[in-house]
Amino acid sequence: MDLDLASDSAELTASLVDTESVSGTEAALAAAIERALRGLPHLSVHRDGNALVARTTRGRPERVILAGHIDTVPVAGNLPSRREDGMLYGCGTCDMKSGVAVALRLAARLTAPRPDVTYVFYDCEEVEAERNGLLRLSRNSPELLRGDLAVLMEPTGGVIEGGCQGTMRAEVTVHGKRAHSARSWMGQNAIHGAGEILDLLRRYQPREPVVDGLTYHEGLNAVGISGGVAGNVIPDECVVQVNYRFAPDRSEAEAAAHVREVFAGYQVTITDSAPGARPGLDHPAAAALLAAVPGAPRAKFGWTDVARFSLLGMPALNYGPGDPMLAHSPDEHVPVAQIAEIEATLQTWLG
Amino acid sequence: MDLDLASDSAELTASLVDTESVSGTEAALAAAIERALRGLPHLSVHRDGNALVARTTRGRPERVILAGHIDTVPVAGNLPSRREDGMLYGCGTCDMKSGVAVALRLAARLTAPRPDVTYVFYDCEEVEAERNGLLRLSRNSPELLRGDLAVLMEPTGGVIEGGCQGTMRAEVTVHGKRAHSARSWMGQNAIHGAGEILDLLRRYQPREPVVDGLTYHEGLNAVGISGGVAGNVIPDECVVQVNYRFAPDRSEAEAAAHVREVFAGYQVTITDSAPGARPGLDHPAAAALLAAVPGAPRAKFGWTDVARFSLLGMPALNYGPGDPMLAHSPDEHVPVAQIAEIEATLQTWLG
Repeated sequence: MDLDLASDSAELTASLVDTESVSGTEAALAAAIERALRGLPHLSVHRDGNALVARTTRGRPERVILAGHIDTVPVAGNLPSRREDGMLYGCGTCDMKSGVAVALRLAARLTAPRPDVTYVFYDCEEVEAERNGLLRLSRNSPELLRGDLAVLMEPTGGVIEGGCQGTMRAEVTVHGKRAHSARSWMGQNAIHGAGEILDLLRRYQPREPVVDGLTYHEGLNAVGISGGVAGNVIPDECVVQVNYRFAPDRSEAEAAAHVREVFAGYQVTITDSAPGARPGLDHPAAAALLAAVPGAPRAKFGWTDVARFSLLGMPALNYGPGDPMLAHSPDEHVPVAQIAEIEATLQTWLG
Repeated sequence: MDLDLASDSAELTASLVDTESVSGTEAALAAAIERALRGLPHLSVHRDGNALVARTTRGRPERVILAGHIDTVPVAGNLPSRREDGMLYGCGTCDMKSGVAVALRLAARLTAPRPDVTYVFYDCEEVEAERNGLLRLSRNSPELLRGDLAVLMEPTGGVIEGGCQGTMRAEVTVHGKRAHSARSWMGQNAIHGAGEILDLLRRYQPREPVVDGLTYHEGLNAVGISGGVAGNVIPDECVVQVNYRFAPDRSEAEAAAHVREVFAGYQVTITDSAPGARPGLDHPAAAALLAAVPGAPRAKFGWTDVARFSLLGMPALNYGPGDPMLAHSPDEHVPVAQIAEIEATLQTWLG
């Protein structure tokens, strides 16, 4: 399969969508993207597994990164793509092959952009963090990811969504004493004890802090609970799995301290976490883009890979075609006109 | 293996224990018991699968049933049996081959007992109710189980434990609305909702009613809880499994109504239940036994097969050697002297 970067952005999106690339099986799509990029003499191209980095090297004082993942969640009977009433339907149309199509089109057409541009196409975003292609690139070749501002083309409905909230999972464990349930007063019921954990969660008042002008909205929630030994046993352990989504004015260490404070007196085990990213909209490099995009920017609540750019020391924002609420749904689709609009806005900004 | 019913009660217990009979594998032990019983001309013997019923038929005005199960929980490195410091250790010593040994000894020696006696040895008590040999007998040959009083020789430490409490399990389900945990306010957390269920359980005041002179002690407890979809999803369902242990002054229907009342407003599904049994110590047939056994009778909290005799219309009590708290433990053991004491008490009562 060869990609035609001269075809319009919706047709190119359809070509990308119809080349299946569920996480872990991106090789064919990565090869097609590599062939297309290597045909562009103004770009220097680097491949790392199924990830590609293509860079202009005109010595501009400023460098912008456009990034997108090329993998999708499992196909759900929604391939091949189809076009209907101005929409393109299919697995990955929204999350996020329309964004990848826009970046590829710009890579082909912007032979001499105003800032230097680095295009990043990577694998395994939809699976566990350790397999993430952007993480791998940031470890293997951090110099290729340096820049002044990163734009992650995840679906935002064509609005700028600044930064992202961090996420942390922890297990809060309640201990009790096992006994036969016919003599329950001989034991101490750990599931009943977990009632206090749930009371704490129900009473919890999440913060809604303003960070760099955007209002975030935190949340602390049980996402799992388990306990029980057998139908005739008073259980001696109950584990509540909680998920804390924290605004980017808090570090991971501060978030962990907060979780431990909320559940003081209980055994708390942090099982995984990822930092947030400040929106960075006050950065000079962002100003021209903010001016070009219609609509007020808003905070990004969900965690995205902008946090990885943030860890590399540069501001990052989310901006791409498609409704983020449709991501991962079998009914996934994207408005054709929105793909073209975003391409035009970015071309004006970078051109 | 041949059983020597003339050997003393501890030696006979050891022979029974050393013939492994984990639930479902009782055939060899049942065959040995059958051979021993068929050698006794004063008994009429009936076999049903791995259960045996042996009856004196002297036309006495009163008939007493002595019953015990011959299966054990899985062996836990505690075979063969061993004797140490006046104790007999091993799988089934306490629950309940020492009781079975006493019944077999009495079956051999009481050639002309005061009341007629029915000895019942049955299989599969330690597994799901549908496989229980006493249940099967009560369906296939209820006439063989008729009597005025049943003594179930489960371990009671040599004290009479009257009747038993009923047990009922129910699932209480809380519904919510699924959402991404980064936007938790879009959903309704079913695990948080289960906090109210746990509050109800923590506030619950169990009854301690006096029934036929014995004080029971109820309990309503969570024995399981589960909920959660994924680490980034607000869960839309949480299920609390509760176990209600109810005194024998309540029927199963009354117990179910009580559970539904406690959790009014929630989806309640009764998943299984078994009725209790009134102690029946006021029955004339019990009076002489009560007089013969040292120590005050007490209520039985755990469910036992006395409830099956109760359903057949006769009072039933628990009386046997061994500490019931040791049942099912790898360290299971029984005091040798207690086996002999109980045999002597029953022989005096029935002889």
